[in-house]
Amino acid sequence: MNYTRSNELPHDITLGEFLFHRFKQLHSETIFGLPGAFNTQLLDKLAKVPGLRWAGNTNELNAAYAADGYARLKGIACMITTFGVGELSAINGVAGSFAEHVGLLHVVGMPPTSAQTKQLLLNHTLGNGDYKVFYRIASEVACYSTLMADQDLCAEEVDDCITRAWILQKPVYLGIPINLIETMVSSAKLDKPLNLKLPPNDKHIEEEVVNQILQHMYKAKNPVIISDACVIRHHVVAETTELSTRTRFPVYTTPMGKGAIDESLPNFGGVFMGSISPPEVREVVNFADFVLVVGCMLADFSTSSFHFGYKTKECALLFPTSVKFKHAIYPDLHIKSLLEALLRKLDESKIKYKCQPAPPMIIPKSQLPSRHTLRHEWIWNQMSNWFQQGDIIITETGTSAFGINQTHFPYDSRGISQALWGSVGYTVGACLGACFAVDEMAKDSLSPVSRRVILFVGDGALQLTVQEVSTMVRWGLKPYIFIMNNQGYSVDRFLHHRSNASYYDIQTWDYLRLLATFGARSYEARKIVTVGDFLEMVQDPHFARNDKIRMLEIMLPPMDVPQALMDRWLTEQESKKRAGEETDAYTPSPESSLKRIRSDDLTPTD
Amino acid sequence: MNYTRSNELPHDITLGEFLFHRFKQLHSETIFGLPGAFNTQLLDKLAKVPGLRWAGNTNELNAAYAADGYARLKGIACMITTFGVGELSAINGVAGSFAEHVGLLHVVGMPPTSAQTKQLLLNHTLGNGDYKVFYRIASEVACYSTLMADQDLCAEEVDDCITRAWILQKPVYLGIPINLIETMVSSAKLDKPLNLKLPPNDKHIEEEVVNQILQHMYKAKNPVIISDACVIRHHVVAETTELSTRTRFPVYTTPMGKGAIDESLPNFGGVFMGSISPPEVREVVNFADFVLVVGCMLADFSTSSFHFGYKTKECALLFPTSVKFKHAIYPDLHIKSLLEALLRKLDESKIKYKCQPAPPMIIPKSQLPSRHTLRHEWIWNQMSNWFQQGDIIITETGTSAFGINQTHFPYDSRGISQALWGSVGYTVGACLGACFAVDEMAKDSLSPVSRRVILFVGDGALQLTVQEVSTMVRWGLKPYIFIMNNQGYSVDRFLHHRSNASYYDIQTWDYLRLLATFGARSYEARKIVTVGDFLEMVQDPHFARNDKIRMLEIMLPPMDVPQALMDRWLTEQESKKRAGEETDAYTPSPESSLKRIRSDDLTPTD
Repeated sequence: MNYTRSNELPHDITLGEFLFHRFKQLHSETIFGLPGAFNTQLLDKLAKVPGLRWAGNTNELNAAYAADGYARLKGIACMITTFGVGELSAINGVAGSFAEHVGLLHVVGMPPTSAQTKQLLLNHTLGNGDYKVFYRIASEVACYSTLMADQDLCAEEVDDCITRAWILQKPVYLGIPINLIETMVSSAKLDKPLNLKLPPNDKHIEEEVVNQILQHMYKAKNPVIISDACVIRHHVVAETTELSTRTRFPVYTTPMGKGAIDESLPNFGGVFMGSISPPEVREVVNFADFVLVVGCMLADFSTSSFHFGYKTKECALLFPTSVKFKHAIYPDLHIKSLLEALLRKLDESKIKYKCQPAPPMIIPKSQLPSRHTLRHEWIWNQMSNWFQQGDIIITETGTSAFGINQTHFPYDSRGISQALWGSVGYTVGACLGACFAVDEMAKDSLSPVSRRVILFVGDGALQLTVQEVSTMVRWGLKPYIFIMNNQGYSVDRFLHHRSNASYYDIQTWDYLRLLATFGARSYEARKIVTVGDFLEMVQDPHFARNDKIRMLEIMLPPMDVPQALMDRWLTEQESKKRAGEETDAYTPSPESSLKRIRSDDLTPTD
Repeated sequence: MNYTRSNELPHDITLGEFLFHRFKQLHSETIFGLPGAFNTQLLDKLAKVPGLRWAGNTNELNAAYAADGYARLKGIACMITTFGVGELSAINGVAGSFAEHVGLLHVVGMPPTSAQTKQLLLNHTLGNGDYKVFYRIASEVACYSTLMADQDLCAEEVDDCITRAWILQKPVYLGIPINLIETMVSSAKLDKPLNLKLPPNDKHIEEEVVNQILQHMYKAKNPVIISDACVIRHHVVAETTELSTRTRFPVYTTPMGKGAIDESLPNFGGVFMGSISPPEVREVVNFADFVLVVGCMLADFSTSSFHFGYKTKECALLFPTSVKFKHAIYPDLHIKSLLEALLRKLDESKIKYKCQPAPPMIIPKSQLPSRHTLRHEWIWNQMSNWFQQGDIIITETGTSAFGINQTHFPYDSRGISQALWGSVGYTVGACLGACFAVDEMAKDSLSPVSRRVILFVGDGALQLTVQEVSTMVRWGLKPYIFIMNNQGYSVDRFLHHRSNASYYDIQTWDYLRLLATFGARSYEARKIVTVGDFLEMVQDPHFARNDKIRMLEIMLPPMDVPQALMDRWLTEQESKKRAGEETDAYTPSPESSLKRIRSDDLTPTD
C-alpha cells in the first residue's frame, strides 16, 4: 500500500505537513527546536502528522546539539528555530554539524514575504530592513541554503534540501516565510520516496583508484586500516568491516570513529590518536608501509593537546566524496560506491601480508584499596568491564574524550564525541538527542530492551548546557550522566600549565540536586568519592539496568587527567627542555620516545 | 599625575595589558566571557591589570547578554571569547547589541598567524582551512570588524576599535591571533586618553535643522516630546530633560526608553506603546500636531503584539547620527551636538503652546482579599509602590515587558529591556551585567548604598539562560529575581490564540531549589501564591534591603496577562470581526476605539 493511502492522507496537504511527512518516511521522528513568533504556524502542522514528536528544547544551542546527536544515530535530523534570535542562537551547534559531517535540516520560520518586500521593521530584525543577513550568516556553515520564495516549487525545494542533507551529511538551511506554510501541495508526491542514492562514480576514475589501492594492499608488508569518523556518517560500516575481515590487516579506529568497527575483531588494535597514541598502537601505525584510511574526516589535525597525522607517504585516504592517494587528489568519488567496487575486485589470495594478530588493546587491570580516592586512569580501565553490547557512549571534549580511548567498546556499541569542532557543553544536548534516537530504535527493532545512553561530561562543560537535562526528565528518558567533577576546566588548566589561573575555576554546584530541581520524580543521584563507592556502583546489577535517569557525580582531584593527556604533557616538557625555551601549547610537538608513566600509587596486576 | 605614573607602569607593556588598561580608563572594570584554547594568553594579561575583574560566565551567549546589560549602564563593555565555538555561541547576544545600540568590544582570541597562513587544520575550525569564516559572520552584526595583523599598529587598532564602539554604541569585532598578545607597546600611549568626542556636525546643516524644529515647536498647539531608547545610549539624558523642562511640552517615554526621563516631572505623561498605549496616552500622542522624538531607535516597528508608530506627519525624529524631519532625511548629524545647538537657540517666550499639565500616569489602586490568587494587572500596579530611587528594573520580553509599562519609575531609576531584538532569556544575563555595573557605581560614588537590581523574568525565559544565576551567586551579587511563573511561554500562547498547543508547555521546575543547587549560602527563595503573600513581602522593610540574592516565584494563572496585552487581543478580535476573516497575528491591526476591560473581579477604588 502506498504512503498516502496507508496514512489516509487527503489529496492535498499543506507544505508544512509535507515537510514533516518526509521526515517520517526517513524514520526521523523527533523534531528539535523552540517555538517563536515566526514558526508556530509550522509547528501547528507537526501536530497533524501522527508518529512525530516535538522535542521542545530549552534553548536553541542545546536544540542544535541534540539534533546533531540524534542525526549521528539516525542519519538525519530536523531542527526548527525562529528568524533572527532563534537561528543565531543555534549557529554554533550547526557549525559543529558542518565541521563533523552530520546531516541536519535547519528550518527557520521567517516573516511573511509581504513584510520582507516592504522592509517593515519587525521584531527580531536588526532594525535596518535587511532580511537576508541571517541567511548570509547561515550560508557560511551549510552545504546548501535557500530562502523559499516560489509557491509552485516549494515541495520540490523541501525534497531537494532533505536529499542534500542526507547525501552530503552536512547542514542545509531552509528559510520559509510563514505565509508559505499553508501552501497546498499534492500528497501524491509522498508516494514517490526521496531518491537518496548517490550519483554513480565515473567508472574510469573509480577503476583507476581501486587498482592503485589494491596494488598497494597486495604488496604491502605492514599495512594498516584506519576507520575514521565518516565510516559511521556515510554509512559504510558494513563495507569497512568486510574489508577488515577479508584482508585481516590490523585495523584501528580514530577517536572520532570509535564504535564503528567491532572491537572484538581479532585484528582490531585499538585507537590511533596521533602523537598521544599508546606506544603499541603508534608503533604499528607509524611504521606501516601502507595506510588505508576509510571514512577520513581529516588527514592532519592539531589541537592544543595533540597532533594527528600519518607518517607514511604510502597513504590512501578515502574521504566521503573524494580520495587522496599519496599526493594525487581524485574529486567526486563517493566512498560507498568506491568501497563496493574495491570489495568486488579484492582477491585475498594476492595479499602478501603475513597475518600477525594485532597486539590486543591493553586494558590494565589494577586493584586499589576501596578507600582510595578516584583517578582517571583507574576509572577508565574499569569502565570497559561495565560497558555492554549496544551502549551509546558519549564523551565530552576534555578529559573524558581522552579517557574513553583507553576503554574497550563491546559489540554494537557506538561512540559520540565532537573532537574536531570541540564545542564545550555539546554532549549534554547530544545525549538528549541520542536518548530520543535510542527510544525510536527500540520501538523499530524486535528487542524490547532499550540501548543504554551513557554520558561522560565534566563539571565545567555541564554548566554551559545544563538545562537540557530538564528535557530528558520531561520525556522520561533514562541516560546515565557521569559528571567527572574535577572542579573546573581541567583539561585546559592542565594544558595551559597555569593551574592557579582563576579563569579556570567555576562555581561549585550541588549537582545531586539538579534532577530534583528539574522536576524528576523517579531518578538516582549519587556521589562517588572512593574506589569502594565506584566498585559498589558498577557491580550492582540493578545499576546496570537503565530503568531511570541517573546522575553520578564522580569526584576527581583537580589536576588528575587520563594517561593520554599526561603523555602529551610529558612530550611537551621534553621538547621544551631540548629546545631550551617555552614552546607554545598549540605547536605540534615533535614526536619523541615516550616514557609511559603510571599515576602515583596505581598497582597494575596485569 | 599621568596614568602610567599613577599606575606604576613600565616603559613597555604587552598589547594584552594595553587593551585592558584602556577599559580601566573608561571605568569598564568587568570583562565578560569564557576561557578557551586561543584566548587564555590574553586572559593571563588581565590578571596584571589591578582593578579589573574577569566575570567568568557560564556560557558565551549569557556572557554576551551580561556584557550588553553592563554596557547599558556603563557605556561600553568588553567580552572575550575563543575562535569558532566561543564567538559563534555569543553571536545572538552581539546581534542584540547591534540592533539596540549597545557599545561592545568583542575580542576573539585566534590561532597564531603562522597556523592561519599554513591553513593547519586546527581544533575549532570547520576543517576546510578557512580562517575568515567567523570574521565574515561577525561582520554582519558589527559596525566595524577587523583581524589584527600588523604588529606595528596594534595599539592604534585597539584604540580605534574601542572608540568606534563607544561613539557609535554598536558592537565592534576584534580578532587577535594569540601570537600578537605579547607584542610590546609603549605604555606612554595610555597617557593620552582616548578621544571619545564626536566629530562636530556641519554647522550649516545643523542650523537648518535646528531652525526648522524650533519653528514647529514655537507654533505647535499640541506638541509632544517622546524620549526613546537612544536618549540613554547616546548620553543625552540631561539635554532631553532640559528640553522637557524648558518647553513644558507633554513628554512621554517609549517602552525601551523607560527610565531616561524623570517620571516625577509635572509634564511626564506615561509610556507611549503605539497601538496598545493606555487611551489617555494614545489620545494625546495621536492627536499631536508636532511630535519631537529624541533618541529615536525606530520610527515604525511591528511585533506580533503591537504596532508602534506616529500618526502625524509633523514629526521630527532625532536618531543617534541622523535626523528625519517630516520626509526629509539629514544624515551625519550627531544627536548630542544637535540638541546642544537646539537648547542654545531655544527661546521659550516664542512658544505658543498653552501648558496644560499632562494627565498624570494612572496607577489604579485596587484592593483584593488577601487569599485571592495573583493577577498581572494587580501586581504591576503594586510594584510602583515598592520601587525606590535608583532601582535598575529589568524586564524580559514577554508578559513582564508589557506589565512594566503600567508602573511608575521613581527618580533616578533605570529600565532595561530588549524590545526590538526580543531574544528570550536575555534578561538573566543582562541582570548579571547590571549587578556588576551597580557594584562598581556604588564604589565610585559617595553613597555606600548599592542600587537595587530587580529582574522580572518568565519561567519559560529563565530556562533558556538559567545557569547565569550561578555567576551571580559566585560573586555574591544581590539581585531580586521575580520569576513570573505562568507555566510556559504565556505571551506567545496568548497571542497565537492556541492555548492548548503543547509546544508552549515547559517542564515544571522546582525553582526555589535553584539558588541552593547553584551553591548559594545566604539567600532567600520564596513562593508567592496569594495577594496576602505578596503584600506581606513588599510591606516588609527587611525585604526592601538588597542584602542577599532573592528568588521570588510569583504564581500566575497560565492565561493571565497584563492589560496592554489584553487590549491588543481585543483590538485584533474586533478587527477580525469587521474583516469577517482571520487576519494573521503579525499584521498591524487598524486602531479602534478600545473598550478597556478589567480582569474578572478586580475592584478599582480609585
